[in-house]
Amino acid sequence: MDKKITSMKEDYSQWYLDIIDAADLSENSSVRGCMVIKPYGYAIWEKMQKALDGMFKETGVQNAYFPLFIPLSFLNKEAEHVEGFAKECAVVTHHRLEKGADGKLKPAGELEEPLVVRPTSETIIYDTFSKWVNSYRDLPLLINQWANIVRWELRTRPFLRTMEFLWQEGHTAHATKKEADEKTLQMIGVYKKFCEEYMAMPVIDGMKTETEKFAGAEYTTCIEALMQDGKALQAGTSHMLGQNFAKAFEVKFLDDKSETQYVWQTSWGVSTRLIGALIMSHSDDKGLVLPPKLAPIEVVMVPIWANEEEKTQVMDQAENIIKSVKEKLDITIKLDSRDLRPGARFYEWEKKGVPIRIEIGPKDIAKNVVQFVRRDSGEKFTVEISEVLEKVSQTLDDIQSSLLQKSQKFLNDNITEIDSWDKFKKVIEEKGGFLSAHWCGDGKCEEKIKEETKATIACVPFDQKKEKGKCILCGKESKGRVLFAKSY
Amino acid sequence: MDKKITSMKEDYSQWYLDIIDAADLSENSSVRGCMVIKPYGYAIWEKMQKALDGMFKETGVQNAYFPLFIPLSFLNKEAEHVEGFAKECAVVTHHRLEKGADGKLKPAGELEEPLVVRPTSETIIYDTFSKWVNSYRDLPLLINQWANIVRWELRTRPFLRTMEFLWQEGHTAHATKKEADEKTLQMIGVYKKFCEEYMAMPVIDGMKTETEKFAGAEYTTCIEALMQDGKALQAGTSHMLGQNFAKAFEVKFLDDKSETQYVWQTSWGVSTRLIGALIMSHSDDKGLVLPPKLAPIEVVMVPIWANEEEKTQVMDQAENIIKSVKEKLDITIKLDSRDLRPGARFYEWEKKGVPIRIEIGPKDIAKNVVQFVRRDSGEKFTVEISEVLEKVSQTLDDIQSSLLQKSQKFLNDNITEIDSWDKFKKVIEEKGGFLSAHWCGDGKCEEKIKEETKATIACVPFDQKKEKGKCILCGKESKGRVLFAKSY
Repeated sequence: MDKKITSMKEDYSQWYLDIIDAADLSENSSVRGCMVIKPYGYAIWEKMQKALDGMFKETGVQNAYFPLFIPLSFLNKEAEHVEGFAKECAVVTHHRLEKGADGKLKPAGELEEPLVVRPTSETIIYDTFSKWVNSYRDLPLLINQWANIVRWELRTRPFLRTMEFLWQEGHTAHATKKEADEKTLQMIGVYKKFCEEYMAMPVIDGMKTETEKFAGAEYTTCIEALMQDGKALQAGTSHMLGQNFAKAFEVKFLDDKSETQYVWQTSWGVSTRLIGALIMSHSDDKGLVLPPKLAPIEVVMVPIWANEEEKTQVMDQAENIIKSVKEKLDITIKLDSRDLRPGARFYEWEKKGVPIRIEIGPKDIAKNVVQFVRRDSGEKFTVEISEVLEKVSQTLDDIQSSLLQKSQKFLNDNITEIDSWDKFKKVIEEKGGFLSAHWCGDGKCEEKIKEETKATIACVPFDQKKEKGKCILCGKESKGRVLFAKSY
Repeated sequence: MDKKITSMKEDYSQWYLDIIDAADLSENSSVRGCMVIKPYGYAIWEKMQKALDGMFKETGVQNAYFPLFIPLSFLNKEAEHVEGFAKECAVVTHHRLEKGADGKLKPAGELEEPLVVRPTSETIIYDTFSKWVNSYRDLPLLINQWANIVRWELRTRPFLRTMEFLWQEGHTAHATKKEADEKTLQMIGVYKKFCEEYMAMPVIDGMKTETEKFAGAEYTTCIEALMQDGKALQAGTSHMLGQNFAKAFEVKFLDDKSETQYVWQTSWGVSTRLIGALIMSHSDDKGLVLPPKLAPIEVVMVPIWANEEEKTQVMDQAENIIKSVKEKLDITIKLDSRDLRPGARFYEWEKKGVPIRIEIGPKDIAKNVVQFVRRDSGEKFTVEISEVLEKVSQTLDDIQSSLLQKSQKFLNDNITEIDSWDKFKKVIEEKGGFLSAHWCGDGKCEEKIKEETKATIACVPFDQKKEKGKCILCGKESKGRVLFAKSY
C-alpha cells in the first residue's frame, strides 16, 4: 500500500501512475483498457461536472440523453466521420447468450444490423435533431449530454486514453454560419475559462490543422495545456461542423422567407482526460496537488495527542473549529483522528493533495493557535484560533491563484521561438514544450516533421503573430508561427 | 404538435404515451427500444438524481464508476445471476468495422472473449471489491454508481421498460450478515422516503417472493406503488445478496481474529422508471402534473396585454416580481412573454405540469394583484403583489402535500381484503389495485394465480398482519396476507 512514489525526474510516466495509485484515483479493471474510477477520483470528476454544467447552462444549453447504440448505417452517412472512427469501434452483434454443446456460454440471437457503441454521438443525435428542427423558430438548438463513450484504443493510460471514458458532448444547430462560428468560439472559451479558473491550468486556444481536426468537421478549435514533462495535452475541442452532418441527416428548417435551409452545427467536448491533465499540471514527488476549487476535501484537521487527557482536550477544540467551518464556509473539512502517528496521517493527505492541513496539539491549545500547512508550497504557519475561518478562505484563494501563476510561468518559459531546423530538433528533444515555428501550411511538411521528431502541430494559436517567415522544414513562405509539441 | 390527449378512461396506455408527448419528456429513437430523453424529461431526472445522491451520501455512500463491459466469463460465475440475465444481453463481439467486398461496413476484429454490455454490475464491481477488501478495517464498503444499463427487452414502453435506461446501483460489502440485513432495509427505506417526500408517491415496502427476487440474491426487498389504472409498479429494490457473489468473486477479509471470512453484500437501485411512475401517479387528462420538489420549473409567469402600452406596463411589473422571486426563493420561475394568445400559453405549461401559473394583466396591476392558478387542483385565486413571495412558497408546499394526500387516499382505497377465489378473480378484473389475500407460500400456487388472472405477488408487506388463514387458491394454511396485483 505504501509504495514509494517514483520521482518525476527518474521516470515521468511511472511517476504519473504512482500518483494515481498513491492518491487512490483509479485502477485498471479486468476489462482490457477500461479503468475503475475510484471514489476519490470520481469526486474530482463530480466537482468538474458541477462547474462545467453550470457554465453550460448559463449559455442556454440544456441537458438531454441519447442512445448508447448507433446503427451501423448511421456512422456510414458522413464519409470522413466513419473513416475516423471505424478502426476503433465496439460492435454489438448479438442480443443474448446461450449454452453451447460444450456447456459454455456463447453469443446468440444475431442482429440484422449490428450496433456500434457510441464513439461520439453526432450521428445518433443529428438523426433526432432532424425531427426537432422544422422552422427557424426552433433554432438555435443547444443540447448537451453527459455520457460514457467507447473507443477501442490499443495503448491505454489511465484518464489520458482509455477504452471507455466519461465526457460531455455538446451539440448545437443554428440558422446561419455566423452563429455556428460564434458558438464554436464561445464554447472553446468556456473550456478555457474552466481550465484557468477551476483547474488553475493555463491553456493556449487555437485551431487544429486539417490533419488534426475532428473527422467530419469544417474546422476544430482546441485548448492545449503543457504538462510538467514538456509534452502538450489537448484538453478540450470545439468543432464547427458546417452543414456536413445536416446534409447527411437532413436537419433542415424553413427560414423566415419559407425557404428550406440546412442548419449549421457545432459539437464540443471535454472528458475525464481532464483529470489526467490536472494531475500532470500541479502534482509533485510527494503526491497529488489539487487546486482548492476541485478538491473533494479542502481542509484536513489532524489533532495530535500523547495521552487520553490531551486527546479529549485537543479533540474538543478540533471539533469546535470544524463545526464553525462547516457553518460558515461552503467547503469540506475532514477530521482525521485515527489512532495513527501524526506523520502517517500527514503523509496520507499529502498524497491525496488536500490543499490545507491544520494541525492542533496540546501546545497549540495552550497558546490558542493551530498550525496551517499548505500542500502546494509546504509552507507552515501559526494561526490564532479566532482567525481560522478567515485564514482558511484566504489561504484557499491564495493556493488557487498561486497554482495558476506557477503554471502560467511554466507555460511562458516553455514556449520557444525557433527559426532553424537543427535547433527545432535539438529543442524538441532536449527541452520540449511548445516550439513556435513557421510552417508553410502543407500537410506533407507537417507529416515529415512528425516522422522525424514525433512533434505535431498542437494548434495554430488564435493570437498567432502575423509575421512572414519561412517554413521550418521546407523553407517555403509562411504567414505566421504555429505551435509544435510532442503530445499526449 | 397540438395533438389531443387521449382521456385516461378511454385508453390509459395511450393516455400515458400522449402525456409524454404533450409534456415533451421523451421520444423513440431510431434504435429499437431505446428512447431519447428530451431536455424537460432529463431535467426531472436531474432533480431526482440530486435528491437521491444527497440522501445516499448522508448514509456514508461514495460514488465511483466501473466499466460498461463485463467479460462473459464473469456473468457465468454466479449460476442464478447468469440465468436471470443471459436471455437479454447486448453482446460485443468485434472491435472495428471494415468495408466488405460489397462496399458495405461489416464488423471485423473478432474478440477472443465476447463482452456483455452491463445489464447490472454485480459481477464487474465485485471483481473489483475483491481487490479493495483485505481486512475488517476496509469494511463496510459503501459504493454507488450512476450509469446506463442495457437489457434486451422485446416489449418496451418509454421510461417503464426500455432497452437502455439510466439508473443508480448501490453495492455494499459488510463483515456480518446482520449489517448487510440492516443496510438492505436502510436503503429500501431511503427509497421509500424519496418516493413520499419528493415524488409525493406513497409506496408499500415489503419482500419479494422467491419467484420474484433478484437473480442471485438471498432475498429482495421492494417498494411498490399503485398507478391510477390500478396496476402496481415496482419503484425500487434493495437486495440482500448474502455471500453468493462474495464466494463467486472471492471477496474475502481477515476478521479481527485473523480468520478469513467472506463478506456479506447488498445491492440496490432505482432508475428512470421512476419518471414513468411519477407520470402515472399524478397526471390528468390535461397533461402532466408534477410535485413541486421535482418540477424543473416551479412557477410560470404569463403576462397578458392588449396593446404595446399595456405590454410595457405589465412586463415591468412581471419582471420585478420575477427578480424578487429569484433573489429570495431557491426555485425556477419562467417568464412566458411570447406573442401568443394567453390561452395557448396557459395550455402549454399546463401540459408540462408547472405547479403554479401566475397571470398578470392591466386590471391586476391597477389593483396591485396577480392571479395564481394551481396546476393540481385548477384553483384560481388573487394574491396581493406584496405577498407573492410568501404565497409562492406556501402554495408549493401545499401542492406537494396535497398530491401526497390524494395519492395516499387512492392507495388506501385500492387495497382490498379478499377471502374467496371468486371474489379475487372479480376484483382483479373489475377494480384492480392491491388484493390483500392469504397465500400458502407455495410457488406453484403463485404461478397458477398468475396464469389465471395475470396477478402476481407485488410483495409480502413488512407490516403484514400476522393472522392465520387459508390460501386463496389451494385452501392450505397461510400465516398471513400478501399483496397481489397486476403489475407494470
